[in-house]
Amino acid sequence: MTTIPMAPLVPSFIQNSWWTPSDPAGGTSVLDANTGEPLATVNNNGMDLAQVVEYGRTVGQRELGKLSLHERALKLKELAQFLNERREELYEFSYRTGATKIDSMVDIDGGIGVLFTFSSKGRRELPNSNVILDGPMEVLSRDGSFAGEHIFTRIPGVAAQINAFNFPVWGMLEKFAPAFIAGVPTIAKPATPTGYVSEAAVRLIVESGILPEGSLQLISGSARTLLDVLDYRDMLSFTGSASTASALKSHQNVIDGGVRFTAETDSLNAAILGPDAVVGTPEFDAFVKAVTTEMTSKAGQKCTAIRRNIVPAALVDDVVKAVGARIDQRVVIGDPRAEGVTMGALASLEQLRDVRAAVEEMIAAGGEIAYGTLDAPVVRTTSGEDTTVDAGAFMSPLLLTWDDVENDAVHSREAFGPVSSVIGYTDLDDAIRLAAKGSGSLVATVCTNDADTARILTTGIASHHGRVHMLNRETARSSTGHGSPVPHLVHGGPGRAGGGEELGGIRSVKHHMQRTAIQGSPNMLTAVTGIWHTGADRVIAGDAEFGGVAEAIHPFRKSLSELKIGDAFASPLREVTLEEITAFANETGDTFYAHTDAAAAAANPFFPGIVAHGYLLVSWAAGLFVQAAPGPVLANYGLENLRFITPVPDGDSIRVTLTAKKITPRVTDEYGEVAWDAVINNQAGEIVATYDVLTLVEKENTTYANWGK
Amino acid sequence: MTTIPMAPLVPSFIQNSWWTPSDPAGGTSVLDANTGEPLATVNNNGMDLAQVVEYGRTVGQRELGKLSLHERALKLKELAQFLNERREELYEFSYRTGATKIDSMVDIDGGIGVLFTFSSKGRRELPNSNVILDGPMEVLSRDGSFAGEHIFTRIPGVAAQINAFNFPVWGMLEKFAPAFIAGVPTIAKPATPTGYVSEAAVRLIVESGILPEGSLQLISGSARTLLDVLDYRDMLSFTGSASTASALKSHQNVIDGGVRFTAETDSLNAAILGPDAVVGTPEFDAFVKAVTTEMTSKAGQKCTAIRRNIVPAALVDDVVKAVGARIDQRVVIGDPRAEGVTMGALASLEQLRDVRAAVEEMIAAGGEIAYGTLDAPVVRTTSGEDTTVDAGAFMSPLLLTWDDVENDAVHSREAFGPVSSVIGYTDLDDAIRLAAKGSGSLVATVCTNDADTARILTTGIASHHGRVHMLNRETARSSTGHGSPVPHLVHGGPGRAGGGEELGGIRSVKHHMQRTAIQGSPNMLTAVTGIWHTGADRVIAGDAEFGGVAEAIHPFRKSLSELKIGDAFASPLREVTLEEITAFANETGDTFYAHTDAAAAAANPFFPGIVAHGYLLVSWAAGLFVQAAPGPVLANYGLENLRFITPVPDGDSIRVTLTAKKITPRVTDEYGEVAWDAVINNQAGEIVATYDVLTLVEKENTTYANWGK
Repeated sequence: MTTIPMAPLVPSFIQNSWWTPSDPAGGTSVLDANTGEPLATVNNNGMDLAQVVEYGRTVGQRELGKLSLHERALKLKELAQFLNERREELYEFSYRTGATKIDSMVDIDGGIGVLFTFSSKGRRELPNSNVILDGPMEVLSRDGSFAGEHIFTRIPGVAAQINAFNFPVWGMLEKFAPAFIAGVPTIAKPATPTGYVSEAAVRLIVESGILPEGSLQLISGSARTLLDVLDYRDMLSFTGSASTASALKSHQNVIDGGVRFTAETDSLNAAILGPDAVVGTPEFDAFVKAVTTEMTSKAGQKCTAIRRNIVPAALVDDVVKAVGARIDQRVVIGDPRAEGVTMGALASLEQLRDVRAAVEEMIAAGGEIAYGTLDAPVVRTTSGEDTTVDAGAFMSPLLLTWDDVENDAVHSREAFGPVSSVIGYTDLDDAIRLAAKGSGSLVATVCTNDADTARILTTGIASHHGRVHMLNRETARSSTGHGSPVPHLVHGGPGRAGGGEELGGIRSVKHHMQRTAIQGSPNMLTAVTGIWHTGADRVIAGDAEFGGVAEAIHPFRKSLSELKIGDAFASPLREVTLEEITAFANETGDTFYAHTDAAAAAANPFFPGIVAHGYLLVSWAAGLFVQAAPGPVLANYGLENLRFITPVPDGDSIRVTLTAKKITPRVTDEYGEVAWDAVINNQAGEIVATYDVLTLVEKENTTYANWGK
Repeated sequence: MTTIPMAPLVPSFIQNSWWTPSDPAGGTSVLDANTGEPLATVNNNGMDLAQVVEYGRTVGQRELGKLSLHERALKLKELAQFLNERREELYEFSYRTGATKIDSMVDIDGGIGVLFTFSSKGRRELPNSNVILDGPMEVLSRDGSFAGEHIFTRIPGVAAQINAFNFPVWGMLEKFAPAFIAGVPTIAKPATPTGYVSEAAVRLIVESGILPEGSLQLISGSARTLLDVLDYRDMLSFTGSASTASALKSHQNVIDGGVRFTAETDSLNAAILGPDAVVGTPEFDAFVKAVTTEMTSKAGQKCTAIRRNIVPAALVDDVVKAVGARIDQRVVIGDPRAEGVTMGALASLEQLRDVRAAVEEMIAAGGEIAYGTLDAPVVRTTSGEDTTVDAGAFMSPLLLTWDDVENDAVHSREAFGPVSSVIGYTDLDDAIRLAAKGSGSLVATVCTNDADTARILTTGIASHHGRVHMLNRETARSSTGHGSPVPHLVHGGPGRAGGGEELGGIRSVKHHMQRTAIQGSPNMLTAVTGIWHTGADRVIAGDAEFGGVAEAIHPFRKSLSELKIGDAFASPLREVTLEEITAFANETGDTFYAHTDAAAAAANPFFPGIVAHGYLLVSWAAGLFVQAAPGPVLANYGLENLRFITPVPDGDSIRVTLTAKKITPRVTDEYGEVAWDAVINNQAGEIVATYDVLTLVEKENTTYANWGK
C-alpha cells in the first residue's frame, strides 16, 4: 500500500529543495508508538534559519502576491483533491504514531477537509483581489469629501507555525490554509515524535506541484532559534504545552520586537451535565457517550479532551458507572493495525511516562481512581494476540473522583492521555464557578435539554471559553463532537488555553493580515480598494439632467471585460400617481393602510398621508434602469441593505441612479458578480431609498452576442 | 471661571470613594509647564491594588451587568452632555500642562466627542442585550439539527488602563468608553505629570452621578504593581513609551497568566509627498501645512506626529524652505494663557531635557538642523512680554535633514517634541521601503492627487501601519488631519507602534469581550442569543397546511410587549400566471427579456423560460403577509440579504413564511426594530427567496389602539 517510503533521516523542505544536514551525526530517534521499533532519525544541525525566513519574506511573498485571494483559495481545493486521492498512503504513517484508523481519519481527512472548507469560504466570502474591506465607509466631513474605512492587507513577513505531536497533518494544514489564502508564506515546524507524518504529507504536496514557490517550507528538527530571526513583519503560531508557549512568549522579539504571537495550549476542559439530564434521559446517554469518546479517541491526547466532568452531585456515581460500563463494552486497546482495536497507544513512551506521573500526582493530591487501572492494560497485537506484555505506549482509560471539588489538582493538573475526572456541583452558579476554575479553556460541553439551563450555563461560562458545545437529544446524533474543532468556528481559548484564536473561517485569514484604517476622498478610497465609493467620480449614461453624458453607454450593456467601477446610469423622473399606488395594492394584495387609507396613514408618525409601497418603488426603479434586450447581464440574484429613507406620496416623482460598485469575476466560471450601488431620489433630490443590486454578468458578451441578429 | 479647585494632593477615586494616603509624606511634585510653579503632589503610598481590582471584578461587573449594551451606550451620551457643559473648567487645568486652547480642545472636546460617537454607534450597531452575534450561523450537519456560530460576551474582569501624559482627558475617555459599553469596569491610571487634569475630569464624572457604581476607578499615583494582581479575566491597555510597554509585556502575568495586553507606543510616523505634488500644487501646500501643524500642535508631543517627511529627492530643499516659512509666519511660542500664542510648552522640564538630548543624539549621528535652533526660543508670557528668559519647558520647532537617508537615527530615534526630519526618495518603491524602515507606525500621510500613486503607496505601506491618511486637493480643507485619531477608525499600529488597536468604533468594544464559538441545535442557539435561528421552534399563525395553528394570532398584530421571537405567520399559496408577469412588466417598465421573451429567457443559463420578476415575488409576498388594518407595526423600513434562489415560471405558486427573528426595543423611543425572517417557497416546497424584513413596531399598541372603534 505505502508508496511513500519512510526516510531514515527525516528531511526538511526549505528554499524549494529537500534538505538534510551534511553531517547527520546525532539527532533524535523516533520510535513506532505501538512496538517501540526505531523508525527514523530527526536532525537539522546546521540549518540556516535566517535564510529560511528571508526566502519566505522575499520569494514566498513575491510568488504568493502574484495570485488573488480567490486564486489562492482555488489552489487549496486542487491540493485537497490531490491529497484526498493519496490519503491512504498517509494512514500507514499515522498508524505508527499509535493512531487508530478513526484517529487517522480525524487527522488526515480532517486536515484535507480544512483545505476544502477554506477554499470554498475564501471564494464565497472574500473579494477576488488582495485588499479586504472591513466594515462600512465612515463619512468624516460634513460635505462628504473626507471619509475613512478599514482594509486588511497581508502581513509582510512569514507565518512560522509550530505544531503539536497529536495531529501531525491536521495541525499543519489548519495553520497553513489561512496563511496561504492571506498570501503569507508558511514555515511549518512539526513536533519531532510524529513529524515524519507531516513530512510525508509535505512530500505529497511538493509532488503535486500545485503550490507557488516559497509558499510552504518544512523544518524537520529543531527550531529553537527561529524567533531570533523573526520580527514585526512575521507571526508565530504555536500549539503545544503551556511551558513552551511561555518560553516563546518571553522571547525579546515577541516582547518588543513586534512578532505577532498566538498560542493554543491544552486546557482543563469541562463537560457540564444539566440538572434535568438524569439517568434515563437521552441527554444522560449522550453525555456518557461523549465522555467515553473524548477519553479514548487519540488515546485522550487531545487539547480539547474533557478533563473535568461537572455533574449534579447526586449523579457522580451514576456517571462513573455508566462511563465505565461503556468503556468495558466498547473499547479495545491495541496496535491500530490489529483487527477490532478502537484505542491505540500514546504517541511515545515519554508521553506514557508523563501521563502516569501526572495521574500519580493527582492521586497524591486527593484524586481516587473510580474506573481503570495504572497497571499495564490488555493489549491486542497485530498477530491478534491479547497480552499485557508489550513494548508500546499503551495505558488504560482512567476516571478519577474527588472528595473535595475545590481541589486545585483537578482544576489545574492535566494528564494528557485517557484520563478524566468527575466532580459534583450543587446548582447552576456552582457549576459555572467550577467550570471557570479551569482559568480559561478551549471548549466546554453543556449537556441539557432545557433552554433556560443552556442559556444560563452557556452565557455564564462563555467568557472563559473559546467554544461551548451544547448537547441535547436534538444533536446527540448530528453533533460533530465536543473534541473536534471545525474549520468554520474558532479554535483557541483565553487564559490557560493560550489566549489564541485559530480557524473560524475567514477570521483566521484575517489574523494573517494587518487591519489598517485609511482616510481620504471617496476617489482615493475607490482607488485603493477597487470598490466604488459614494461621492467618487463616475461616468454616467442616461438622463442628461442627472449627469448623463452622450458618449457613455448603459453599463448593463458591458461585459466584465468592458465594465469599470464607476460606470453608471441615471434614469429620468417618473411620476407616482394615486391610481398606480391603488392598482399596485390591489394587484399585489399589499393593502397596508399607509397605501390605502389617507386618514390612518396620516396618523402614522412616519408618513405624510398615503405613500407608495417601498416594493413599488424598487420595482419601478428596476423598470427605469433595466435593459430589456439580451446582453451580458444574466440575472439579478438579490438585493442588499435596502433602506427606505423618504416616503413618496402620490404626485412625487422618482428617479434612480445605478453605479457599478464592486466587480468580482469568478475564477471557475465565465461570469462573475457585479454589485451596483442604487439610489432612488425624488424630484427634490432627496434620497428615497438606497440599496445594492446584485447581478451576474458575463466576462465576455458570449450567450447573447449575436442574439436577434 | 474655575469652579473645580486644584487639589494640593491629587486624590484617587477607588471603591466608590475619594482616597488619599493616610501618610502623605513623599510623593511626586507636579509643576506648571509654562512657569515652573509647583501645582500639586501625587502620592498613593499604601493603596491596596488587589482590593481595587477585586472591587471592579465584583461590584463593577455586577452593576454594569444590570444594564444592556444600549443602556450603557445611552449613559455615555448623558455623561458627554454633562461634561460638555463643564468643559471650560477643564481647560483651566489643561493650560497648566502647556496646552494651548486648541490643544486643550483636542484633548477635552475630543474626549467628549469620543463619548458621543461611541454612544451613538453602540445604539445603532449593537443589539439591545448583552450578547453580540459575530457572523452568520454555520450549519454543521446535513439535517440542519446541529449548527454553530460566534458570540461576544464581556470579559469577566477589569480593564486596567495606563495612559500617557499628552492627552490626560482624551486618553482616559477613549479607553473608558468602549470598556464601559462592553460592560467591563475601568481602572484608569493617568500619567503623573498631567494626571491632575484627568482627576479633575473624574471629579466632574463622579459629580454627575451618571455612571453605575464600580464602573470607573482612578489611580492617581503609581500602579507599578497592578499587573501582580491581574489575571486572565482582565485586560491591560497601555499608552506610553516602548520601554515601559516592554517591561509590562514581560510581566509573568502577561507571559503566562493570560492577562490581555495591548499597547500603543509612539512611532516614527511618515508623511510621503507624491512625485506629482511639486511646488505650486495644492498638494504641496497641503503637505507643508500638515507638517507644520503636526510639528507645533501639542508642541509636537503626539504619538502620531510626523517624524519623517519622505519627499522626492529634488524637493527636499523646497519642503524645508516652505515649512520654515510657514512656521515663521504662523507660530507664536508662549504661555497658552497669553494672547496670540499658537504653540505652548512641553509638558515638563524633564520632557524638554529628553527632547533636546534626542536631537543632540540625532545630530551626532548625522542629522543637520535645517530650520530652527536649540537655543532658548522667544517666548510670550501672560503679561504680553516676549522674552528668551523663562522658567517653562519651551523649545523652538526643528527640521532636520540627512545626507544619508538610510541613517538608522532618522528611522529609529524619536524626539518627542516639535522635531521632524526631511529625507529624499528616488521612486515609489524607494518611498515605500523608507516608510517601512520605521518598523511599524501608527499613521502615515500619503499626499498626492494621482489615484495610481495613492493606490501604490497606500497598499505598499498599509501592512506597516495602523492608519494611512491620504491627502489631496479634495481633502485639504476637510481632512481631520494626519495626527488626529478619530473614534470611528482604529488607532494603533504594528511593530514599534506597540501592536495594539484602540478605537475603531465597535471594534474596540469587542476588544473588551471574548469571542466564543457556540454549537448546538437551532433551538439552543436561539435560547443563548435571543435571536430566532432557522430550524428552531416557532408558533405559526395562518395557513394550517403550512403549520399554522388556530390559536396563534398574526404576529403583525402584536406590540413589542406581546411579541416573542419565533412568532410566525404562514401564508396560503398564490399562483403566478403569465398574464400577471406580463402586466407587472408593463406597469413597472421592467421588460427584461427573462419576463417577456420565452426564447431568449430559455437561452439564459439560469432560467427555464419566462419567469416572474424577483420584485413581483417580494411584492406579492408582502401582499400575502401584510395586515391591512392599522396596528402596532408602523413601517417596513428596509430589507436585508435578499437572495433569489429558485426561479418561478408561470404556473408555479408561491407562499411566504415570516418569523420574528430579532427584537430590538429602543431605549429612547416608544418603538423598536423587529427583523423578520422571510422565506418564499414554491408549491413543491423549494426555496424561492430568502430575506429579512425590517420593521418598526410599537412597544405598546398605542397609536392605533382605538382606531376605527
